[in-house]
Amino acid sequence: MNSLDKNTQLSNDFTEHKTQISTWFQGLQSRICTALEEADGKSNFQIDTWEREGGGGGTSRVIENGNLIEKGGVNFSAVFGESPAQILKLMQLEPADFFATGVSIVLHPKNPLVPIIHMNVRYFEMSNGIYWFGGGIDLTPHYVFNEDAIFFHQSLKIACDKHHASYYPEFKKKADDYFYIPHREETRGIGGIFFDHLKDVNTKTKKITKQDRWDFVREIGEAFAPIYTKIANKNKKFSFTKEQIEWQRIRRGRYVEFNLVYDRGTKFGLETNGRTESILMSLPPEANWQYAHEPKKGSEEEKTISLLKKGIDWV
Amino acid sequence: MNSLDKNTQLSNDFTEHKTQISTWFQGLQSRICTALEEADGKSNFQIDTWEREGGGGGTSRVIENGNLIEKGGVNFSAVFGESPAQILKLMQLEPADFFATGVSIVLHPKNPLVPIIHMNVRYFEMSNGIYWFGGGIDLTPHYVFNEDAIFFHQSLKIACDKHHASYYPEFKKKADDYFYIPHREETRGIGGIFFDHLKDVNTKTKKITKQDRWDFVREIGEAFAPIYTKIANKNKKFSFTKEQIEWQRIRRGRYVEFNLVYDRGTKFGLETNGRTESILMSLPPEANWQYAHEPKKGSEEEKTISLLKKGIDWV
Repeated sequence: MNSLDKNTQLSNDFTEHKTQISTWFQGLQSRICTALEEADGKSNFQIDTWEREGGGGGTSRVIENGNLIEKGGVNFSAVFGESPAQILKLMQLEPADFFATGVSIVLHPKNPLVPIIHMNVRYFEMSNGIYWFGGGIDLTPHYVFNEDAIFFHQSLKIACDKHHASYYPEFKKKADDYFYIPHREETRGIGGIFFDHLKDVNTKTKKITKQDRWDFVREIGEAFAPIYTKIANKNKKFSFTKEQIEWQRIRRGRYVEFNLVYDRGTKFGLETNGRTESILMSLPPEANWQYAHEPKKGSEEEKTISLLKKGIDWV
Repeated sequence: MNSLDKNTQLSNDFTEHKTQISTWFQGLQSRICTALEEADGKSNFQIDTWEREGGGGGTSRVIENGNLIEKGGVNFSAVFGESPAQILKLMQLEPADFFATGVSIVLHPKNPLVPIIHMNVRYFEMSNGIYWFGGGIDLTPHYVFNEDAIFFHQSLKIACDKHHASYYPEFKKKADDYFYIPHREETRGIGGIFFDHLKDVNTKTKKITKQDRWDFVREIGEAFAPIYTKIANKNKKFSFTKEQIEWQRIRRGRYVEFNLVYDRGTKFGLETNGRTESILMSLPPEANWQYAHEPKKGSEEEKTISLLKKGIDWV
């Protein structure tokens, strides 16, 4: 946690939150890129800033052909403007401006024994005072190592538990449901946490402030780099075979299927004329499709498939 | 045209059309596979028959690692059962059974100088007497050769013109509109023809029978193999470079984007619990994504991109 950062404490003025939160997210993007470049040891992030026609813009940072990361992106954006008519209609709201900011990450490692990872943290608000936080992290190993899966989920649970006892079980279940590929009848990976529409709550039994939500979102954002680099630095040393690369390419194909067919962020981005290269930076450098591929009985590949299901308790 | 086939003339009994049409389609599948195996000269189609839980089934024929075709599928299916509630609601119809049959093809060649091709011909009817034919062919060259594009469109125009003067211009425009990737602002390839909801028409100015429509659909089905093998047999002899393969992989990535994000058949299949491996046999053996890839100024790759737009008159 970056305790010196003034943007960790939200001011009393709602109109200042946009800047506070997006500034903090931009800092997070930098810290994560630095940590990933250190772990990679070869490639650096290429930085592209872009502007959105309707208002705002972002910075895409993409790393390719590294020692650790074959292709990965760490995106920051802060966009604003008139709320899309479809959203207003859906929410039965009068016209209002929106502001959305966040950091979004997908990393495709070179070594098939290192998992793919995704993280997203975001904030949305409207000029009518509506706001919420959302986000998630999920891990997609090409080969499931139990110790990594346990470490990953335990780390998320520790981060969640600091903020609310209900967070981990609730958000873990949401991730199982969200990161699921119905037509394959398998989860994308071993899940993680997924949350959305987090706002302040003030009931007899539950009192959570906007600052509490923001503290939680920052916790998750800061947890990303240490969790991933720990798994990656361990597994990147393992040697791998041509067959394991082939399997990695097939699993990446499933990643493409999830992102293009089901991922809400991708669909929303493409439908609302977002910056295509930033939205699709989540796609892998190389993906393969073989007809009716089935892993060998008793193989590590088959074991992995057997663990791609909802409801596994890893902690 | 296979004039000895009794299923070329529809009987006077509507209830017999299902069998007549699906039997003819199954024959077409065989003829096309034979022609493609001859052109390939190495690999053979692997045949998988499958049954659909709600009624009917199909035969998927897939070829992999050939001389000409790196991965391709020629699917036949004939499925029936209760019409999906969403379709009945959309059409404001009482419950009715449906029957759908067709042949669907996507071929990904090995040589990047040979184009990807897609063809689909299909028939749909309901127990309430509603029916239509649909289909299309489109060509997706990784490198556009003008002579091939002209030959392809002229061949389709000749096939169309035998049946109605309006077909080629009308269906060519529909293909331009359908095979389009909005988020890339480019067409999938150089288009072709696309048609749907073809039924009998009986007005003062236009009289087209169901038999006329069926004759047209058979014409297109039979045109596929000679058109494609002519282009493929010529271009497969050209030598190619590593850079051209890289470009092919990137173009295949766009093919994946179109099929998973926009293609109606794919979406419908996945949403209605179709056989995943048959639906996704359209995906390439290997596809690549590079961040913000741009072809060199003045290159053949750039020329190709410049021709991926609507409204080009190739005939």
